[in-house]
Amino acid sequence: MPLNRKLRYGMVGGGPGAFIGAVHRRAAALDGLTELVAGAFSSDPDKSAEQGRALHLDDDRVYGSYQEMAEAEAALPDDERIDFVSIVTPNFLHFDVAKTFIEHGFHVICDKPMTTTLEDAETLCRLVDEHDAVFCLTHNYTGYPLVKQARSFVEDGTLGEIRKIVVEYPQGWLASRLEEQGNKQADWRTDPERAGAGALGDIGSHAENLARYVTGLGMERLCADVGTVVEGRPIDDDANMLVRYENGARGILHCSQISVGEENNLRLRVYGTKAGLDWRQEDPHYLVMKYNDGPREVYTHGNDYLSETALHNTRIPPGHPEAFIEAFANTYANACRTMAARIAGEEPDPLDLDFPSVQDGAVGMHFIETALASGEQNAAWVDASYTPPGGK
Amino acid sequence: MPLNRKLRYGMVGGGPGAFIGAVHRRAAALDGLTELVAGAFSSDPDKSAEQGRALHLDDDRVYGSYQEMAEAEAALPDDERIDFVSIVTPNFLHFDVAKTFIEHGFHVICDKPMTTTLEDAETLCRLVDEHDAVFCLTHNYTGYPLVKQARSFVEDGTLGEIRKIVVEYPQGWLASRLEEQGNKQADWRTDPERAGAGALGDIGSHAENLARYVTGLGMERLCADVGTVVEGRPIDDDANMLVRYENGARGILHCSQISVGEENNLRLRVYGTKAGLDWRQEDPHYLVMKYNDGPREVYTHGNDYLSETALHNTRIPPGHPEAFIEAFANTYANACRTMAARIAGEEPDPLDLDFPSVQDGAVGMHFIETALASGEQNAAWVDASYTPPGGK
Amino acid sequence: MPLNRKLRYGMVGGGPGAFIGAVHRRAAALDGLTELVAGAFSSDPDKSAEQGRALHLDDDRVYGSYQEMAEAEAALPDDERIDFVSIVTPNFLHFDVAKTFIEHGFHVICDKPMTTTLEDAETLCRLVDEHDAVFCLTHNYTGYPLVKQARSFVEDGTLGEIRKIVVEYPQGWLASRLEEQGNKQADWRTDPERAGAGALGDIGSHAENLARYVTGLGMERLCADVGTVVEGRPIDDDANMLVRYENGARGILHCSQISVGEENNLRLRVYGTKAGLDWRQEDPHYLVMKYNDGPREVYTHGNDYLSETALHNTRIPPGHPEAFIEAFANTYANACRTMAARIAGEEPDPLDLDFPSVQDGAVGMHFIETALASGEQNAAWVDASYTPPGGK
Amino acid sequence: MPLNRKLRYGMVGGGPGAFIGAVHRRAAALDGLTELVAGAFSSDPDKSAEQGRALHLDDDRVYGSYQEMAEAEAALPDDERIDFVSIVTPNFLHFDVAKTFIEHGFHVICDKPMTTTLEDAETLCRLVDEHDAVFCLTHNYTGYPLVKQARSFVEDGTLGEIRKIVVEYPQGWLASRLEEQGNKQADWRTDPERAGAGALGDIGSHAENLARYVTGLGMERLCADVGTVVEGRPIDDDANMLVRYENGARGILHCSQISVGEENNLRLRVYGTKAGLDWRQEDPHYLVMKYNDGPREVYTHGNDYLSETALHNTRIPPGHPEAFIEAFANTYANACRTMAARIAGEEPDPLDLDFPSVQDGAVGMHFIETALASGEQNAAWVDASYTPPGGK
Repeated sequence: MPLNRKLRYGMVGGGPGAFIGAVHRRAAALDGLTELVAGAFSSDPDKSAEQGRALHLDDDRVYGSYQEMAEAEAALPDDERIDFVSIVTPNFLHFDVAKTFIEHGFHVICDKPMTTTLEDAETLCRLVDEHDAVFCLTHNYTGYPLVKQARSFVEDGTLGEIRKIVVEYPQGWLASRLEEQGNKQADWRTDPERAGAGALGDIGSHAENLARYVTGLGMERLCADVGTVVEGRPIDDDANMLVRYENGARGILHCSQISVGEENNLRLRVYGTKAGLDWRQEDPHYLVMKYNDGPREVYTHGNDYLSETALHNTRIPPGHPEAFIEAFANTYANACRTMAARIAGEEPDPLDLDFPSVQDGAVGMHFIETALASGEQNAAWVDASYTPPGGK
Repeated sequence: MPLNRKLRYGMVGGGPGAFIGAVHRRAAALDGLTELVAGAFSSDPDKSAEQGRALHLDDDRVYGSYQEMAEAEAALPDDERIDFVSIVTPNFLHFDVAKTFIEHGFHVICDKPMTTTLEDAETLCRLVDEHDAVFCLTHNYTGYPLVKQARSFVEDGTLGEIRKIVVEYPQGWLASRLEEQGNKQADWRTDPERAGAGALGDIGSHAENLARYVTGLGMERLCADVGTVVEGRPIDDDANMLVRYENGARGILHCSQISVGEENNLRLRVYGTKAGLDWRQEDPHYLVMKYNDGPREVYTHGNDYLSETALHNTRIPPGHPEAFIEAFANTYANACRTMAARIAGEEPDPLDLDFPSVQDGAVGMHFIETALASGEQNAAWVDASYTPPGGK
Repeated sequence: MPLNRKLRYGMVGGGPGAFIGAVHRRAAALDGLTELVAGAFSSDPDKSAEQGRALHLDDDRVYGSYQEMAEAEAALPDDERIDFVSIVTPNFLHFDVAKTFIEHGFHVICDKPMTTTLEDAETLCRLVDEHDAVFCLTHNYTGYPLVKQARSFVEDGTLGEIRKIVVEYPQGWLASRLEEQGNKQADWRTDPERAGAGALGDIGSHAENLARYVTGLGMERLCADVGTVVEGRPIDDDANMLVRYENGARGILHCSQISVGEENNLRLRVYGTKAGLDWRQEDPHYLVMKYNDGPREVYTHGNDYLSETALHNTRIPPGHPEAFIEAFANTYANACRTMAARIAGEEPDPLDLDFPSVQDGAVGMHFIETALASGEQNAAWVDASYTPPGGK
Repeated sequence: MPLNRKLRYGMVGGGPGAFIGAVHRRAAALDGLTELVAGAFSSDPDKSAEQGRALHLDDDRVYGSYQEMAEAEAALPDDERIDFVSIVTPNFLHFDVAKTFIEHGFHVICDKPMTTTLEDAETLCRLVDEHDAVFCLTHNYTGYPLVKQARSFVEDGTLGEIRKIVVEYPQGWLASRLEEQGNKQADWRTDPERAGAGALGDIGSHAENLARYVTGLGMERLCADVGTVVEGRPIDDDANMLVRYENGARGILHCSQISVGEENNLRLRVYGTKAGLDWRQEDPHYLVMKYNDGPREVYTHGNDYLSETALHNTRIPPGHPEAFIEAFANTYANACRTMAARIAGEEPDPLDLDFPSVQDGAVGMHFIETALASGEQNAAWVDASYTPPGGK
């Protein structure tokens, strides 16, 4: 029998003024599958309490630290305590928080990049297996219905054999030293201690994940020109690389936070022997298919002729655009329905298993470390092949 | 002191398989301002109960009829009963349901078109005044941040004096008789008894509302070629009209449900003496400004340089597109914050008062009736000027 | 045996500073089919001579008036005199010049609108028949390969039965009284004496022609709101109309010269029972096909899978965009190849007969007069059906 | 006194069925500045004669070889012989033909890449200087008015200091072995003997030239993954590289002939400290400027507010798109006006000197050789700095 209640969740991070915490809360709320009942929203207990009140939580479910929260929640009765935690802290805390909650028996939805070291990522892989936890990493861009359609076109052979992958992620918001002007987001995201990597971690990892999700291909080797364009910044803000994928396909991946005027322009192009595909995050409701022997096709969401997985991740009819939050919510909804099935003792619907895993997180960390290593060797070619531990 | 809780609401309509009910629920949920606690989801009590369970409502807050719901909720203690009702039934029920809930002391969020007759619409205007209710009509397309920016550009004089308005709303989904193939949406929307008007009511009223919202201009006269293109259909599915606005501006308004291949292509262009603007619902995150003496400008949401009202209706940073549900949620959020202020005995923030009113609904009904009347007179020019009763 | 030489032509109008004369010369030159050998470029003999020198013509083939030119050229030996004349004067002269050259035995390529009265247009129809002249009217927008493809999609049934036609032609350049600021183009184009009609003649006639060329449908009745938006201007600068076509299809046609920021935004949308098409002059290398049951298709020029007539009017491979002058040159090339065949005593290739005829010009004049008449009757519905005299 | 006649030119190459020869003839014809009077259109004298007749040339000016043509034309009187030669042969002949005509005292317009070796390119640089010839290399993409506007925005400081350059040129037409299916273009362009390099020479050189033209920046080093994707092809068909420019800017350049469905999608993005620019050859009439602190701007051609050099290279008003042939013709027109001034003994207008030079050709050859060398060393970083001999 399916679980007949909303999932209860708590949040770590996402205090006043945070960006991604509010996105997670909206994504979690959109489909009516969850209710937020607990939180450790800030390392400052006062700020945590303030945020708890703003969210209308019970005061006694708002905690001063994530450790306290994990213990207190674990001690609550089954029908009260949270089912999962959403981790939306700066990157350097992801590992400790995730580890703690997994060890206390909770499922986890965690923002990316998963950790700040590959070692931590691999530890998490093992912990997830040991504790049989559901772990979802919010590489939210793979939640778009037309990204799923793109993957379907690779899987069903529409593209033929893949020959070339071009994935890029230009942003411009860090073209000047915003981090010295009181911008909270810029502050921690350009601090090696709290962020781990810069552009590579924040957006390069999305680019890697998106390309791999759609094509199913891992990297074999890469050569990365990683660097800091804005003088005085202690972290990478621009990275450009050549890639060879495991099937021999050639690739280009570039990401940047100093490309003035670019907002959030993640784009993936994949060329096979039969067709090419083109998807762009800023116009996410279109997928362009290109052929040598016929007109271009422009797919939009919600149409009957799309793949089952694309339609599974769509709420409203064609022409009523779904966008960033809806895609994020797809990642949440799939993970939540998987948890609900597990809690109810049922097999998850295979369509619901379509969310980024802890192994995806490890692959992402390996990618970041590999690219940084190449960069440090003057953009030398380095081995990029990797298989994460655990998983099915 | 601001209201420190979520608003409680109930829903009338929105049973299993309904489209717009689910949209309202998502819009209501997105910002964490409301919780759904009651419902009369269907005129069939079993279906209503089924939907209530799917939404994890208490069984005793799920009702077999809206009358029962209004009475039962009104009898509940202050800290339990709903604050407002969302009306998402087929059009012909809007009036009775809204009247009933207003008379029982509730605020109302109602789908459009507001009623099926102008007379009913005017009655609602008076009832809202008498009962001091907050009434919000979900002309959701005015909820888009870049529509609000468009209005700002009219208000701040960027466009100069308005000379021409072109608003169009082509859809293609009713190009064949879907209503005879078991399509539930097509079924009631093409039934004059349940829908009132066809294309004019369903989408033409949105076009009228959008143009008026952005420009502030009412119509003075119009000439409408309204008709049925698909043979055997008892309701209008295509309407094209010439318009003169109250300031003398010329206009074209056309809407269609038989324009094959069009999804939901609402578009507004306004030309003033100084600039022209162009906004399109299928790419709602762009507003194009055109000038004779400088390059086109493309505005995207979330940027600092946008108007206060545009930013008030935006959640996430530039390049992270917000779309249909977010715009719908803006309408909800503004109405809900207005209700919350009123419940808390405070003045609403003027920025929150920006949602379509019961008067907008009456203007819309007058527009529909006027266009139909012109159509029946072989598209003769008719007087279109109108001032709704009540309001501030 | 095909004609083994370039065609010789003369030009009337197109003096220093003229816009359309230079376009005609480029269109004529592009494919190496013609050489310009004579001209009466201005009613001012000195300016005519100046232009002749700038174009490196023989002085004795540059004339002070078109009458002189017609007579002198007719008196030249067969292997010297011009084969055809290009008429690029202000509109009010088209008729007299065309009549004169036809009567002197020359073929004619004439700018549009063809005349300033329907009566003159019908006279030309009869003259062309009597003198067995080749007459080409430069409704150049039908020269685009993807407009021809659009027509092919109507002809081959891809669209099904046509139900709705939306054609629009907004420009903004006359949003202020440029004609009082020394703008030569604005000067004559807003003078009723020299231009005949304003927006309707200059661009509305293109819109009418484009819709008819693609759909093959004539108008049955129309209701036109024609007027002058810019105060003090003695001619129409904005016209909006509802149309019924001869097969019952509904239509909207609007054109404007006061739509600030619009450059030359002619656009045609046609909706049939099976598909819709969308073409826009400012991006003329795309044709969008829309369907209810499949993805949109975007056609680009030069691809093998296009229709024979589209490919006949294309010079270079896909991705190498052809644009305004190339389309204009297609009209020239087809007319010139037709003339060359006629001069050589051969049957023209049917693909070459695809250029606007004198009858198209008469239909255009009837359209302009009908729309003006409707406008003068307060935009009343008027009969718009018409069959021009003569032709095949 | 300016030269009061058209320039006379001859063509080497461009026989029946050739693509680029016909483009050159159209570009040369468009503005009425030249007349084609001679040719050696094919190495097969019969085909050369056939083409001469098709172009209505005098039989005695149609030659069986370029050597014969150079000698015969040089022997003609001043007022008969050609002023310049257009070289449109396969690449391997460019050098010999150019050398021959320069040595016989003619000016040269030559297709790209200029030669097949850097050594030959440098020889040409010296010959051009020695003979005081006008030499124009048809890197036609820099002829677009909005590319010139882009360069103006770099020059006038709108972009600030340049930090990143992304230039790409995907095509898909060689995704299969067309060269084995009788495709004449594919045949020679994939033959190392006749083409020199493959994708790098054919399109990579355009990408290099475009980026350098707009930014003024030479490369300092690069790392190129150059290869053959289509099995059995003896030449490169895909090349991807990381670049560092002489000012330290980072760059990505990629070109491909196997990117299925891409037509001719050359695109340049340049990011400076103040703004970013984006131009794409398939929609060449737009230039997008992006800023962090204001809306995007979209520039279109022909508007008064564009730079002098952009307007110098534009023929018709805004909204009347100019495209590939017009851009090509700009290159021709500037070179021809420069020759005409030189022939007339006058100083060329500085605006006319804006065409690619023999030094540009040498830089291009150095780029090709450098990229190939990097590719052969497994995409190692190599020095890419270079200064061509000669020039001003």
